[in-house]
Amino acid sequence: MLVAISDPDDSRIEAYRAVRERDLAGRQHRFVAEGEVVLRVLLRQPRFEIESLLLAEGRVETLSDALALLPSNVPVYTANRQVMDAIVGFPIHRGILAVARRPSLPPVEALLASLPEKALVVGLIGLANHDNVGGIFRNAAAFGADAVLLDQETCDPLYRKAVRVSVGGALVVPFTRAPSADALVQALEAASFEVMALSPSGMQVLSQVRPARRTALLLGAEGPGLPPELLARARTVSIPMAGGFDSLNVATTSGIALHHLTQGR
Amino acid sequence: MLVAISDPDDSRIEAYRAVRERDLAGRQHRFVAEGEVVLRVLLRQPRFEIESLLLAEGRVETLSDALALLPSNVPVYTANRQVMDAIVGFPIHRGILAVARRPSLPPVEALLASLPEKALVVGLIGLANHDNVGGIFRNAAAFGADAVLLDQETCDPLYRKAVRVSVGGALVVPFTRAPSADALVQALEAASFEVMALSPSGMQVLSQVRPARRTALLLGAEGPGLPPELLARARTVSIPMAGGFDSLNVATTSGIALHHLTQGR
Repeated sequence: MLVAISDPDDSRIEAYRAVRERDLAGRQHRFVAEGEVVLRVLLRQPRFEIESLLLAEGRVETLSDALALLPSNVPVYTANRQVMDAIVGFPIHRGILAVARRPSLPPVEALLASLPEKALVVGLIGLANHDNVGGIFRNAAAFGADAVLLDQETCDPLYRKAVRVSVGGALVVPFTRAPSADALVQALEAASFEVMALSPSGMQVLSQVRPARRTALLLGAEGPGLPPELLARARTVSIPMAGGFDSLNVATTSGIALHHLTQGR
Repeated sequence: MLVAISDPDDSRIEAYRAVRERDLAGRQHRFVAEGEVVLRVLLRQPRFEIESLLLAEGRVETLSDALALLPSNVPVYTANRQVMDAIVGFPIHRGILAVARRPSLPPVEALLASLPEKALVVGLIGLANHDNVGGIFRNAAAFGADAVLLDQETCDPLYRKAVRVSVGGALVVPFTRAPSADALVQALEAASFEVMALSPSGMQVLSQVRPARRTALLLGAEGPGLPPELLARARTVSIPMAGGFDSLNVATTSGIALHHLTQGR
């Protein structure tokens, strides 16, 4: 349903007003997806209900095949670049925005119970950087991880920037949040996952590790790393590096570990 | 040699004025390093001549051990936050900047001739994104790659942001620029490197690859990838991914490949 918008103050596009400020304030039960690649991923994920789109004129045609997937009652607002930028509050070069509803997050136990017998899960502890969380979701999607579990300190994978950096991976891989890091690990243990913790001080070298049928990979923030009490409960694994430069980005680390753990699958 | 600066217009700190604008305009034979980690890496690299430092007051003490490595004739300018921000043109939270001279880049053939008999080199073709180039240098340093070769389209590893993202890796791994992608590959072949090209359409799976004594890993930009004429001359290697989400960041890809190629070293 195409709806042309010519007035930036039109109340129908309220959800797109001042996007950056809303990013910070939060959107309760909604999130924003931007750009063509992410929109195409979103349209293929039935668990997200799309409320509306806002497209720059000229984008409607290039997206026509994707828009055919959209239920006919969902409004597709269109505006010229000037009006779109005025609504959004900054130049929105990609000219493609969508607002969708967040599904409620299941309890960790329920998500784990829904996974296949052979499963690979990623657990994120204290990861407050949206680029890193987005990058990890991109890798989790690329290597077919079955789920991502977050502790309370890990940031929102559906934050606009995280979704963008994930190239839609945050919409592909199921995730939920545990009440605490401790509860997260307990749930994994109860669901018969072998918990593997990546740490520079890990006892075993990644390249020597054979994954169990159910494996969970725990990642902590660069710098502080994983708390000692979690390391004590896990199989600790390190990635050996060249002398004097012991530093990998945590998203890159997730890619290296997921590649290794899935290459024999 | 500590020199207190109280006037933002002081001509002695000319090199630090309007840092972002200078980033874009270029600095001819100089580059800027920022932050404590990068500065500490820079101080350990004898091939870079440091011209001066600009530190926020209060940083001098925390860096005193590192500053002991600095030749005594190199000026260490200090300023309060307000003056420093006025000089630089934006709030410089880390409070640590250095200006150093760029060494001239050797011909590719000379750099390759200087490497050990067993060597691993990374070749970058058309990588115009400073985050990606910085991330690749971080990984190259972490896994002990011996050199990085750039084509003409690949961006400058000593651009301020690239150095920062590399966490100093751009100062650790020797690099140089070839006159063209073709000349880059020719020089590798002439120096008896097996040229391996990462590509989604690669003939061999990365996890099955055993590196040659001299291996060069070619990486192209996400999207266009490596040009067909280079792929035709190389051993092509792919990283298998989960169905429907065939997308890895190129810096993450470099980490995965370098980890695999060095794990048996």
